[in-house]
Amino acid sequence: MKNQRTVALNQVSVKDGFWSPLQKLVVETVLPYQADALEDRVEGAEKSHAIENFRIAAGDSKEDFYGMVFQDSDLAKWLEAVAYSLIIKPNTALEQKADEVIALIGRAQESDGYLNTYFILKEPEHKWQNLQECHELYCAGHMIEAAVAYKEATGKDSFLNIMCKTADLICSRFGKGKVRGYPGHQEIELALLRLYRMTGKQEYLDTARYFLDERGTEPEYFQEEVKQREWAHFHLDPEDRKYAQVHAPVRQQEKAVGHAVRATYMYTAMADLAAETEDQELREACRRLWNNIVNRQMYITGGIGATVHGEAFSIDYELPNDLIYAETCASVAMVFFARRMLEMEVKGEYADILEKELYNGILSGMQLNGRQFFYVNPLEVVPGVSGVLPEYKHVLPERPKWYGCACCPPNVSRLLTSLGEYAWGENRDGVFAHTFLGGTASFQCGGGVQIDCKSAYPWNGAIQYTIHPSGGQSDFFFAVHIPGWCKNISVSVNGEAVQPNKKDGYAYLERQWHEGDTVDLKLEMEVQRMYANPKVRADAGCVALMRGPVVYCFEETDNGGDLAALRIPRETKITVREEELSNIGKVPVLTMEGLRLKGGDALYCDKPFESKPVTLRAVPYYAWGNRKPGGMRVWMVE
Amino acid sequence: MKNQRTVALNQVSVKDGFWSPLQKLVVETVLPYQADALEDRVEGAEKSHAIENFRIAAGDSKEDFYGMVFQDSDLAKWLEAVAYSLIIKPNTALEQKADEVIALIGRAQESDGYLNTYFILKEPEHKWQNLQECHELYCAGHMIEAAVAYKEATGKDSFLNIMCKTADLICSRFGKGKVRGYPGHQEIELALLRLYRMTGKQEYLDTARYFLDERGTEPEYFQEEVKQREWAHFHLDPEDRKYAQVHAPVRQQEKAVGHAVRATYMYTAMADLAAETEDQELREACRRLWNNIVNRQMYITGGIGATVHGEAFSIDYELPNDLIYAETCASVAMVFFARRMLEMEVKGEYADILEKELYNGILSGMQLNGRQFFYVNPLEVVPGVSGVLPEYKHVLPERPKWYGCACCPPNVSRLLTSLGEYAWGENRDGVFAHTFLGGTASFQCGGGVQIDCKSAYPWNGAIQYTIHPSGGQSDFFFAVHIPGWCKNISVSVNGEAVQPNKKDGYAYLERQWHEGDTVDLKLEMEVQRMYANPKVRADAGCVALMRGPVVYCFEETDNGGDLAALRIPRETKITVREEELSNIGKVPVLTMEGLRLKGGDALYCDKPFESKPVTLRAVPYYAWGNRKPGGMRVWMVE
Repeated sequence: MKNQRTVALNQVSVKDGFWSPLQKLVVETVLPYQADALEDRVEGAEKSHAIENFRIAAGDSKEDFYGMVFQDSDLAKWLEAVAYSLIIKPNTALEQKADEVIALIGRAQESDGYLNTYFILKEPEHKWQNLQECHELYCAGHMIEAAVAYKEATGKDSFLNIMCKTADLICSRFGKGKVRGYPGHQEIELALLRLYRMTGKQEYLDTARYFLDERGTEPEYFQEEVKQREWAHFHLDPEDRKYAQVHAPVRQQEKAVGHAVRATYMYTAMADLAAETEDQELREACRRLWNNIVNRQMYITGGIGATVHGEAFSIDYELPNDLIYAETCASVAMVFFARRMLEMEVKGEYADILEKELYNGILSGMQLNGRQFFYVNPLEVVPGVSGVLPEYKHVLPERPKWYGCACCPPNVSRLLTSLGEYAWGENRDGVFAHTFLGGTASFQCGGGVQIDCKSAYPWNGAIQYTIHPSGGQSDFFFAVHIPGWCKNISVSVNGEAVQPNKKDGYAYLERQWHEGDTVDLKLEMEVQRMYANPKVRADAGCVALMRGPVVYCFEETDNGGDLAALRIPRETKITVREEELSNIGKVPVLTMEGLRLKGGDALYCDKPFESKPVTLRAVPYYAWGNRKPGGMRVWMVE
Repeated sequence: MKNQRTVALNQVSVKDGFWSPLQKLVVETVLPYQADALEDRVEGAEKSHAIENFRIAAGDSKEDFYGMVFQDSDLAKWLEAVAYSLIIKPNTALEQKADEVIALIGRAQESDGYLNTYFILKEPEHKWQNLQECHELYCAGHMIEAAVAYKEATGKDSFLNIMCKTADLICSRFGKGKVRGYPGHQEIELALLRLYRMTGKQEYLDTARYFLDERGTEPEYFQEEVKQREWAHFHLDPEDRKYAQVHAPVRQQEKAVGHAVRATYMYTAMADLAAETEDQELREACRRLWNNIVNRQMYITGGIGATVHGEAFSIDYELPNDLIYAETCASVAMVFFARRMLEMEVKGEYADILEKELYNGILSGMQLNGRQFFYVNPLEVVPGVSGVLPEYKHVLPERPKWYGCACCPPNVSRLLTSLGEYAWGENRDGVFAHTFLGGTASFQCGGGVQIDCKSAYPWNGAIQYTIHPSGGQSDFFFAVHIPGWCKNISVSVNGEAVQPNKKDGYAYLERQWHEGDTVDLKLEMEVQRMYANPKVRADAGCVALMRGPVVYCFEETDNGGDLAALRIPRETKITVREEELSNIGKVPVLTMEGLRLKGGDALYCDKPFESKPVTLRAVPYYAWGNRKPGGMRVWMVE
């Protein structure tokens, strides 16, 4: 059994000064925009064809398939996001569009449940023969997740029925005593676990476990598979076992390696299964992998997967700010992983990372106009270098409108629309506030209770909860996450200071609650000068600024060019002032006196270059690149 | 006319505490070793086959051609180095080996003068059709240089005759009114200018000028050439015009771009031609390109060509220490360029760079055992990263025994054996000491004079010259380079302080010289803390140490791992102490108190990590990697 379960989306109503406008943006702008992108109606954007491919497979169109072997998954993630958005705010047009697409998917599906437009249309003779490269299980997983979400949001069965048929096909094909295999890109595992929880069908859990436990065993499946076929799709090297995490059985894996999204989707499923089945060995593996990521391989923004080569984890402490990858999808995946770890054991460190990703590494993936997206999230952008020089081609300095491989944009959509799922948790004895998401949530514990949260988080550390027990009063504990960044927290109940029981990063308030009881938190929220472990050579001699969970950055538009020529004296006073920034809105801006080194014509000099005092401004990292194009830097020379 | 000419090698005798042992190493170890490598007799080394290819072409062997399309050039550079070495020290075995190889070259040459084993053996139908990629003119250039050197060293004509035949073929084929073309890899231009000076044949100079002036004119030749053939060798993109410096006519080029060795060989020829023909426009182009390299694109070690992509110059100020290329050949080429600039105009800045390359960027290319060589010369080496991670595969942390593309090792050999050529210069009115090379040189000016130089340079700034006019006395100026790094210089003649006329980085002593007159220089030689221009983001917040012309570095073997965790306080006292280091010998080691930051388990912390005082040691950069493998860093966090 899980230690606690996060509260389902339909039990949560979000009314948050920070997130509600963003959710509104996603619902009103991003999702319709992404529907247009998926229908190839956005001028100047990369072609998608994702919906047209289903029309062709359904016999409604005579065009040719276009796109990646995993093109279906972009549509799946959009559908999943639409499902969540309908919980936030009913929208007949979006729901109608979704229903149409779902009907199309149903008609494109083959009679045995097979569903993948690439193979249906392009290589029907090659189905299931190249799990290593061809993403059939991955696409099925995303469609299953979407179907589960759509059922939860609308109560409609048709999508779920379609995807149960696909899931049944997969479960009947793969497993012990059946055909051997596991996916090149993990995703089906976590999807089958969600489907298991919705349907109660044991086979889904068993197949998820099979895919996880078979992975990386000898003889390694991909190396066997490649011998059986005379064709390849991406020509991946099956000897590169770390790339797809098949270098060892998952329970024995020590470090996060290879493709960061594949890895983290897998860890998510591992943690989910471990909690679901109380599997201690798997739990230990999850903890080990989590620790390796968080303490060795994560950017301060939550970015993971440091290298473009294989979109992969690099080695411990190798975290270049400019050559970086830090795919938006990988940060999204880290939120999934964090939520599953939290469900396994309530510890503040998991909620800390969840929060870090939400306010930084994920949000930076989307322009605040909702129409442009980053795949790669750099911590240093240099004009003329980023996106230009061969080594830096992947580090785009401006968010593009769409991608040929468009995994990230709909991943952001589905995360932002399902934010409510990451905020609250409960078990038999009490309620957890993992993040300070404004709004209301309903819980079953204590005979039913509703809790309201009001705050101006993340800009202000004052948070107020109001408790509404269904029966007017109720005994349960209310546990609130104490953010790792917070040095002082004070808690009061109905205006009187209390000393909560602090455990594992949570403040537990256990009492009899009455209607209208209030809990006030005051989180000390100073600007913090952050330093990287001395083993992180990329950040040596540098400081980064945070305030609460928000990482700040220095943009050229505020500070002039050559950001590496700026210095932040250790003792400088940093002022926080709310400002209205164009395309961003009102945010606290950090202002401080710094220095700018003045260069001469010489490249090297036997004394330090002179400097002049300058006033420097830092803005929240997630908002970078929303004003004028130019340099950006998170880690500043101290 | 040239402003001055550097003095020919056979007029110079080297007796220098620093260089003589290295020349001995090259003569006694490196050249025989390289002969073995060229004959594929070194176990564990990359195959060369360079000599065997000539045997096959001469009909002496039935093997198959092996190697690059420019494999001949490795042998050419070795022969050139052997020629210089015979001036340093006669060696019957080496000379015999060279004579044999030269005879082989003669027999491999075709009757019309054509000489290139790749095309003779592999693609005779494709001769001269792919100048862009196929290095026929490049190989011819290196063979011509070798032949000129061999004639100078031995007086023997056969090699020169062979190569004049090849040069005549080239001159008869290419030019205005003849076949259009220019080389993909420049080298023939500077070689033809050398051959012109040896033979006085105007056609050689004219063809060199043709190749230079035709280059980059419209319609661009490589783009035309590629249309004429249905095959390619390296599949270079003819649209990438900067790669081979055909983006503009050479006289209009503004910045150093593209492949660094190609570029710098070309600039060398441009400067040579400009001085030879008093071509003001070409001279201005050379100055512009020189300034761009030296003030925008050069590592503190003299390394040039910052990126592996195209082995090329990057953009201004983009000088990564770890991703670096800085090919040894490019530093060698920079010495050629510097010498030609010095001949064009006597300015200390040229001699400074010449010196910088010799004591740092070139010498680092060779293990001090004479049997291993670097192609790439990093300023930061990180275990587990350099040579390992995909982006860093080219940055080897240890010098290999040989290379499949072995341009660098024989380039170091030919430079170290011809050191004497870079030390001295003269014109009608006087004598120049460009570097402080110990030994003796003979000059024609002032009716003939011999000058001895004694010093312990670069470790000591005391240099003594003794003047021996042939007739017992003579009027001429003696101009000594004042190194750019030197803040105070005192000069005395026969023990009495004098105030020389200082001009453009040289101290001019004009007087009547008598037999046995001595000139003593005292160059103040303190350890200098060097800082990079604030526009160089790679070095932001860092300091590098130099003493005299020698750049220092910090190795893991002296200082422990995680060199980025070390700090050099700005005020720390740096002690110079001579030490005997294994595999390196006696060198001044820099010792100082510094700090080592102590890391914890966390990746980020809201206060600076603690540090502890440590004693740090820096050793000369050129000697790095000669003891134990491990990390190395030139730029240290201050």
